[in-house]
Amino acid sequence: MIIDGKKIAEEIISQIADETVEPLSKQLRLAAVLVGNHPDSRKFLELKKSVAKIAGIDFRIYEFPETITTQQLRKEVVAISKAQINSGVIVELPLPAHINTQYVLNAIPEEKDIDVLSQKAQGAFFTGRFKILPPAVEAVKIIFEKYNINIKDKNCTIFGYGLLVGKPISHWLAAQGATVSVVNEFTPNPKSYALNSDIIISGVGKPNLITADMVKDGAVVIDFGPDVDFISVSLKCSLITPPTSGIGPIVIVAVLKNLIELSLK
Amino acid sequence: MIIDGKKIAEEIISQIADETVEPLSKQLRLAAVLVGNHPDSRKFLELKKSVAKIAGIDFRIYEFPETITTQQLRKEVVAISKAQINSGVIVELPLPAHINTQYVLNAIPEEKDIDVLSQKAQGAFFTGRFKILPPAVEAVKIIFEKYNINIKDKNCTIFGYGLLVGKPISHWLAAQGATVSVVNEFTPNPKSYALNSDIIISGVGKPNLITADMVKDGAVVIDFGPDVDFISVSLKCSLITPPTSGIGPIVIVAVLKNLIELSLK
Repeated sequence: MIIDGKKIAEEIISQIADETVEPLSKQLRLAAVLVGNHPDSRKFLELKKSVAKIAGIDFRIYEFPETITTQQLRKEVVAISKAQINSGVIVELPLPAHINTQYVLNAIPEEKDIDVLSQKAQGAFFTGRFKILPPAVEAVKIIFEKYNINIKDKNCTIFGYGLLVGKPISHWLAAQGATVSVVNEFTPNPKSYALNSDIIISGVGKPNLITADMVKDGAVVIDFGPDVDFISVSLKCSLITPPTSGIGPIVIVAVLKNLIELSLK
Repeated sequence: MIIDGKKIAEEIISQIADETVEPLSKQLRLAAVLVGNHPDSRKFLELKKSVAKIAGIDFRIYEFPETITTQQLRKEVVAISKAQINSGVIVELPLPAHINTQYVLNAIPEEKDIDVLSQKAQGAFFTGRFKILPPAVEAVKIIFEKYNINIKDKNCTIFGYGLLVGKPISHWLAAQGATVSVVNEFTPNPKSYALNSDIIISGVGKPNLITADMVKDGAVVIDFGPDVDFISVSLKCSLITPPTSGIGPIVIVAVLKNLIELSLK
């Protein structure tokens, strides 16, 4: 079955739209920081903005030039985070190479860190003590719950160990009792891991990295990359996210869910 | 080859003993918190104490009854951490079941958290920004450096995902570019993971969990458990830690190294 991420996202948004009216007396606003002219970053932010609008959440993009320094950007993120009107703060990644990304992310206080990326929020997440999950993890959890996938005795392979996808998801799966393998570009035999897996999650960003010969019949494939040769792989899967309207829209609503969750505290 | 952990530890201790004389003008003291009457905990602490003595580091054990509450224990750990005379603080685990362990560990400030167990220190570790490593990770790193083991293209299997061994080591290996599989008691086919592995690291505490038929010729086996059927497995390994004088003494010196490292800042 092909997962209709857009439909799942819409269902959650309509729940969110209902929820944001009632228990929250204040108007929520998501503050997004955009540095430089990365076209994908702008596209993603515009997408998030349009979804936030449907959910009844204000959205403000703070733009800064590519040439901003780490210190300047950190100061700006501190100020943006301090503004009462901003209920949650995200910094669209990647930042330019000269910026110390983690130092900038650490300027977001836990109670507004809806991407779970500051050192403090990650510490809370990795010790199992944060009230929200990193958006990619929440998106995977939404899918597993919707399709009643029990991960405890499953073999899972994660392609890539990045900040947003591989690292948090592999930890979360292992903490839930799944068997987890993390493979990367140095792995001599990625196919042998993938072929043995009930669940494959990929977050590399390398088209056609995962081909049909690497996937066993009936596997579940969640593709953040997109890394999957979709047409051939989908024929073998019991469940798969397509490259468009797949996991992406669910990650976006996970960010909004996190905003509401932290605002409700 | 059988790793002589005691010898490696002694080499490091003699370095430490030299180092602690010179650049540190103050006498270092390690404060250890012991709750209840867990005989293993007391044994481990006495071991740490004797090694600290050789390294010229004072060691004070603070004992509390099994019946202490989480709030009381947290208060005590705050006070112990505040005392200037204590350069580093450890809480011997496990704590009694009624105690909220992570909440107690969070009372240790980063600059004295030589076990890297508070939420803050773990956040710093998981974002690659802590100046020391969790002792079990440091011990593995010491072995890999001593025996020139390059982990980047290696298949590694980690047995268990506990706070002290499996969780930090699997993250560190993956962050270094190793291929890492975490297996647990729900894993349907642990043998297939282990047999495919160049490196096996185990931290479960279940004797004879890992038998010779699960290990490929030439593998490196590091056993925190002890979980390995040592006599039969050692015949197949290129490198293995024995159940006594193995990884244990190296972990203890890693704690002392961390104490010195954080005190030098």
